[in-house]
Amino acid sequence: MPAGTRLRSVRDCADKEALSRNTVVEAYNRLIARGYAEARPGSGYFARKAPGHRTQAPAAHLSEAVDVVSLLREQLEQHYEVRVGDGRPPPSWMEGSELGRHLRGVRADTWSGLGHGYGTPWGYLPLRQTIARLLHERAIQADVRQVLLTQGANHALDLIVRQLLEPGDVVLVDSPGYYPLFGKLKLAKVTMVGVPRLPDGPDLQALQSLAQQHRPKVFFTQSLAHNPTGDSLSLAKAHRLLQLAAQHDFQIVEDDPFADLMPASAPRLSALDQLERVIYVSSFSKTLSAGLRVGFIAGPLPVINALCDLKMVTVVSTSDFVERVVCQLITSGQYRRHLTRLKARLDAAQRLSLPALEQAGLRLFSPYTGGYFVWAELPDGIAEIDLVRRAAAQGIFIAPGSVFYPDRQSAKPSMRVNIAHANDERFLRLLRGGLAPA
Amino acid sequence: MPAGTRLRSVRDCADKEALSRNTVVEAYNRLIARGYAEARPGSGYFARKAPGHRTQAPAAHLSEAVDVVSLLREQLEQHYEVRVGDGRPPPSWMEGSELGRHLRGVRADTWSGLGHGYGTPWGYLPLRQTIARLLHERAIQADVRQVLLTQGANHALDLIVRQLLEPGDVVLVDSPGYYPLFGKLKLAKVTMVGVPRLPDGPDLQALQSLAQQHRPKVFFTQSLAHNPTGDSLSLAKAHRLLQLAAQHDFQIVEDDPFADLMPASAPRLSALDQLERVIYVSSFSKTLSAGLRVGFIAGPLPVINALCDLKMVTVVSTSDFVERVVCQLITSGQYRRHLTRLKARLDAAQRLSLPALEQAGLRLFSPYTGGYFVWAELPDGIAEIDLVRRAAAQGIFIAPGSVFYPDRQSAKPSMRVNIAHANDERFLRLLRGGLAPA
Repeated sequence: MPAGTRLRSVRDCADKEALSRNTVVEAYNRLIARGYAEARPGSGYFARKAPGHRTQAPAAHLSEAVDVVSLLREQLEQHYEVRVGDGRPPPSWMEGSELGRHLRGVRADTWSGLGHGYGTPWGYLPLRQTIARLLHERAIQADVRQVLLTQGANHALDLIVRQLLEPGDVVLVDSPGYYPLFGKLKLAKVTMVGVPRLPDGPDLQALQSLAQQHRPKVFFTQSLAHNPTGDSLSLAKAHRLLQLAAQHDFQIVEDDPFADLMPASAPRLSALDQLERVIYVSSFSKTLSAGLRVGFIAGPLPVINALCDLKMVTVVSTSDFVERVVCQLITSGQYRRHLTRLKARLDAAQRLSLPALEQAGLRLFSPYTGGYFVWAELPDGIAEIDLVRRAAAQGIFIAPGSVFYPDRQSAKPSMRVNIAHANDERFLRLLRGGLAPA
Repeated sequence: MPAGTRLRSVRDCADKEALSRNTVVEAYNRLIARGYAEARPGSGYFARKAPGHRTQAPAAHLSEAVDVVSLLREQLEQHYEVRVGDGRPPPSWMEGSELGRHLRGVRADTWSGLGHGYGTPWGYLPLRQTIARLLHERAIQADVRQVLLTQGANHALDLIVRQLLEPGDVVLVDSPGYYPLFGKLKLAKVTMVGVPRLPDGPDLQALQSLAQQHRPKVFFTQSLAHNPTGDSLSLAKAHRLLQLAAQHDFQIVEDDPFADLMPASAPRLSALDQLERVIYVSSFSKTLSAGLRVGFIAGPLPVINALCDLKMVTVVSTSDFVERVVCQLITSGQYRRHLTRLKARLDAAQRLSLPALEQAGLRLFSPYTGGYFVWAELPDGIAEIDLVRRAAAQGIFIAPGSVFYPDRQSAKPSMRVNIAHANDERFLRLLRGGLAPA
């Protein structure tokens, strides 16, 4: 449409397309916000000469990748009063003031020690050493050269996808699974095949036949306190899963964002495999602060070297400054004390919220095993999207289950529930009123 | 080679390949460091079963990309006493203690204000507002929605490359130019065409015929205090360059890392074009601290929206924490005071080092126009690589000119000189002894 073309009037468009006028106005406002249209008071809406016409539309693979993360944008951008669909606990749980007090004394030193160079591409060495010790507690023996710092788990996954995969490759993912990963895989033009999740981990029978059929390169999974279902892998399944990986020759990327809230002895694939075939990803975003952006990858030495090269070529290095801050919080013992308090809060929250959810008519997919999430199935006949919309109208943010499926067609009506936010009376009232079949 | 195979002895390998034994030992040590070999004391060197065999070798496009940034690794990893090839001034110039003192009082507030969520994918709003004001001073009118925060200029360039380009696309780059960009372009399987750099900016006659011949999508350039040559674009050339961009319909990415050291009125393409066809990139890495990792992109609204989506899909968000720190340093006036002192240091350094370089036999490509670099041509008959090697043996790090050429064949013997390090007597002595033709 050439610049300056008048768009149809709101009334005309609403009538002919059988839409509400509000819907049309909202659509036009989005066009304006994105620079594609402008409003001329008194005259209506007009197409705008978008600057740099070759870059107006994102590349096709990007827009598809972005589509699946509309939820992410919703979480980051929208302001809801009740955030039961959120990926994180309430800010008050993160003890801004307490950790802040501790930091007051160390900041000047952090700054003077910084040197203000780019640091090494591996990241701040004392933090890598500290992480190697944390991994040792989890029974994962990793040399410090096998630990690469990243700007959070998402940066870690992005590096891994870029390094290991080529367009057209096939990978296995949890279904339902961690949807921000799906966006990265779509961006890389990789084919995702969903492995159904059971209450004790991936459905291995399904996994075996999918592996036979598709010959995947990698299986991306979360073993513990899985996002979104909240279930954890059993030890027996972990062992069997690694046998299947060897038999069908695929690698495993194990993402463990709730590591510091889980027992050290929990059945991690990386602990069984000792980083031969498994690449381990974790982060301080869920347990310390997502505003720092510090995560890491541990894996086989050649893989870590290659990922470090890729990190260096693309971003040079991660922030020495925040890595020093995280290191100080861990080595001073502050982080451990914070985790103790956080676990007590989660424990109290799940005691209250899980019975309340069940009483309100939801069926929980698995017992609570740690982390922030449980997965709740809706009663038959309840349309997920209707519930989400009604909730949004009341200022309640719900994460609809379908977003977490790599293939939305296989989705059953469900939602991811953040237990830290779930015992809110407004949310429970919505459920009680809305879960009776129409 | 199967795991467990004995490698040739150092003596045997050195003799048959006509290498020094030290060279062979170093090569073997590198294999060990990368996990491909192991030393068994008393028995020699053996090939190692590399874990995860499918990922031993990085993807071909990555290893090529990494090859061109060997210099980057050298800068980040190696320890030289005299760092005349460095990309940054000495740490003492960055005033760790002074800025650190200022930060002591604000850290607790920064932390409490953080909220510990992921922040928005655009980045910390008050810093974006502050940057919009800084751009306004540079005569670039950008709405705050046109400013996207990144993890440094390299992250910005990586996002731009991933968003705008597809494999096989052709782009123009400065020749010599900013070599970490070349790595990203190779990674994206994009074809680079070098535009020769003259002392007042790109050679526009060459650019015109290259544009005609190759129909490039984008021209990546640094207008001011160009890295590596140190020259700056003239106003007349800036105007003509934008005409050529319109005529041949390519976009321009203008990287301006030394912005805060240059006059606000310097001829920026973005100021002439007002972000219609030009995407502007800058960073606080060169002037405040590379250890923070804060940079930004300003550009046409639809481009920024698409880049923000890409940023969200790949890393969710940048660090709210460091963005708050940078914002406080700017709004408190500390950053401006620091810049004043930094400019005075640069001024003093260039007064001393430029005559010394010329007296030692180097020919400077252009007068000093700002920033950290000058480009020095070697006298006829002097082999660049020999000089670099001799320097390294004496603990002096030189950035060889050839690394900065997208097509190394067109390189003339030269080096990038960091004026903050150039007046070192050890370096000058090396030059005086080494620049006489053999």
